[in-house]
Amino acid sequence: MDYDRFFADRLSALRGEGAYRVFADLERQVGAFPKARNYRDGKVSDVTIWCNNDYLGMGMSDHVIGAMCEATKATGAGAGGTRNISGTNHYHVLLEQELADWHNKDSALLFTSGYVANMTTLMTLGGRIPDLVIFSDEKNHNSMIEGVRHSRAPKEIFKHNDVEDLDRRMAKYPKEHPKLVAFESVYSMDGDIAPLREIVDCAKAHNALTFLDEVHAVGMYGERGSGVAERDGVADEIDIIQATMGKAIGVIGGYIAGKADLIDFVRSFGNGFIFTTSLPPSVASGALASVRYLKDHNDLRLRHQERAATLKRRFTEANIPIIPSVSHIVPVLVGDAKLCKQASDMLLNDHGIYVQPINYPTVARGTERLRVTPTPLHTDADMDHLVDSFMEVWGRLGIQMAA
Amino acid sequence: MDYDRFFADRLSALRGEGAYRVFADLERQVGAFPKARNYRDGKVSDVTIWCNNDYLGMGMSDHVIGAMCEATKATGAGAGGTRNISGTNHYHVLLEQELADWHNKDSALLFTSGYVANMTTLMTLGGRIPDLVIFSDEKNHNSMIEGVRHSRAPKEIFKHNDVEDLDRRMAKYPKEHPKLVAFESVYSMDGDIAPLREIVDCAKAHNALTFLDEVHAVGMYGERGSGVAERDGVADEIDIIQATMGKAIGVIGGYIAGKADLIDFVRSFGNGFIFTTSLPPSVASGALASVRYLKDHNDLRLRHQERAATLKRRFTEANIPIIPSVSHIVPVLVGDAKLCKQASDMLLNDHGIYVQPINYPTVARGTERLRVTPTPLHTDADMDHLVDSFMEVWGRLGIQMAA
Repeated sequence: MDYDRFFADRLSALRGEGAYRVFADLERQVGAFPKARNYRDGKVSDVTIWCNNDYLGMGMSDHVIGAMCEATKATGAGAGGTRNISGTNHYHVLLEQELADWHNKDSALLFTSGYVANMTTLMTLGGRIPDLVIFSDEKNHNSMIEGVRHSRAPKEIFKHNDVEDLDRRMAKYPKEHPKLVAFESVYSMDGDIAPLREIVDCAKAHNALTFLDEVHAVGMYGERGSGVAERDGVADEIDIIQATMGKAIGVIGGYIAGKADLIDFVRSFGNGFIFTTSLPPSVASGALASVRYLKDHNDLRLRHQERAATLKRRFTEANIPIIPSVSHIVPVLVGDAKLCKQASDMLLNDHGIYVQPINYPTVARGTERLRVTPTPLHTDADMDHLVDSFMEVWGRLGIQMAA
Repeated sequence: MDYDRFFADRLSALRGEGAYRVFADLERQVGAFPKARNYRDGKVSDVTIWCNNDYLGMGMSDHVIGAMCEATKATGAGAGGTRNISGTNHYHVLLEQELADWHNKDSALLFTSGYVANMTTLMTLGGRIPDLVIFSDEKNHNSMIEGVRHSRAPKEIFKHNDVEDLDRRMAKYPKEHPKLVAFESVYSMDGDIAPLREIVDCAKAHNALTFLDEVHAVGMYGERGSGVAERDGVADEIDIIQATMGKAIGVIGGYIAGKADLIDFVRSFGNGFIFTTSLPPSVASGALASVRYLKDHNDLRLRHQERAATLKRRFTEANIPIIPSVSHIVPVLVGDAKLCKQASDMLLNDHGIYVQPINYPTVARGTERLRVTPTPLHTDADMDHLVDSFMEVWGRLGIQMAA
């Protein structure tokens, strides 16, 4: 086998499909966000970021930055070990307590990322609860898909947000048969929100555990900001709430929250938790400061929702076709992979606007899009510039306008 | 099914086996390391850490701490997205260049942890190179085992560091059949080092790719500190060098380094790389400062080796039974799970010494141990105290002394 040839061929095929990714080399700037520096071909230019998952700009908050630097200066750069072997820092303990309180659960458990939290938890439960069948929404994130797959538990993929389909599939198994329903609250590519109450009622009727991914919701929904489950009043009926500290919380890392023994079980048996260096004290300290701030600042959520509503209205008035979304996510439909990449390039090069194209396999072919995420820090003037630029590029490329 | 009962029963079984883990709640202190605060039952005491994987104390270095705080203040707490969607920060780019240079490779690729680097890379190669057979050392780390397993590639587990067994297993396949040999340089529980030259020669004779995990070696071996492959002059023949930034580099995160197309292939197809928030700018900046320092400071490595040699000699003189180790790791044999936990508890409670017990399944039953890791910051006085304390505890518990 000629390995060099194999890798070169596969990459060349990707380029041919227009699916080869080039990463924008950015430098966000505290105090100037959403403005950032963009490094390209040895040059540096200014851009406005419109596709950030630091949804509330908490990563730019003095509050969080101060907490990170303070912890680093006091206790060092890294944790120095796995959680079990000298790597549990007091900030981890405080943060797990804070997260448990936020979700009104007994316990929480930190992971190095939301990806690892999903994968490890689902692999551990699916692999260790005898005969467990996992019911998984067809639009679940890759980290959940991998977790379900590698758990090797039997699975049933139900139609997206379709409670009837879920019910039908669960009804095939006796009530006492172990089951787990895995789903998300906010789906990040379409910005739709799952009918949590209906899903939970259905799951409980069949005696299933419920596993809810709130990564695109924590910090942003509910009076105390702990997510859609809080907003919809169903948090107490969710067995495992999973989320990330890398989006609205503004730092990095993932976690789960739930009943004490369930969390302790994952802590005790989850390989992706056990065998890895724990998060730096600075990360835990920054996330702790962020969560405490978010609990008390519903004003930030109101401002965020206003910004998203305003941007949707502005796009609609300009006949820029947006995919209907009930969340803070504003997906603009292009419907063609190459046009989508071209539009993104023109926005960046000619207008200083950075929105990454979202193509297959992240979304279905024919639904290629620019996924815009307004933050509370994007101003009316930023929106003027954004909408004008989209109109210019849409016209120049002849992309389909809204009807 | 009664889920609550299931979790409670499993945890109770763990407790019965003596395998239930209780994490020490620590706070390392810059300027005082290896001393740390230990939080327990509402009280705080001072301890000396002797089981840290921040092997060189770089996590306590002003140099690294300064670089982290500077990046946080300039560019914020988190990266704000996945590498592809607004989450590539200029520090990531600089760090990947620096790591590639360190290992004398074309390219490097960052992951959120060494665990994810191993798992994702092996899953991607094993899952996507048609017919690839993976040859894996029987003592490989859990992250490699999981990567091999979930790739679903056929595998051959060869005897630990046994080149004859590896050769015999590879000879079953035609030379043109795709193969990959996955192994480590320093095995962290015994502290032994693989015969890299022999393994590489054998792998190349069978036209196999070589994947070397240097997580317990980077920073510590070789004139420029890039690992045992550098020290042994075989780095150029290793196709993929994998390592962590969470041990001797002192921060967190993992990476691979290799030829441009191979690295680009993992970048383009590795789900555990693609679908996750990238490392905070502070982490990349801190690791960058650390690697640059380590390249130029062989004195730190010499001091580290001297400390390890001195501690081994001191234990030997005191008839404390150490498992022979050719690396910086000093495993002290206890040989019984309960005694091992008791010894660790006594050292902590009565002597202010923190060494975590290492029991099954991390090591084989009958080889339970205390794994001691001296750093350049541990003084002769620290060692006096350590050895005296071990002797007292060994005597009190009647643990077997060296012959």
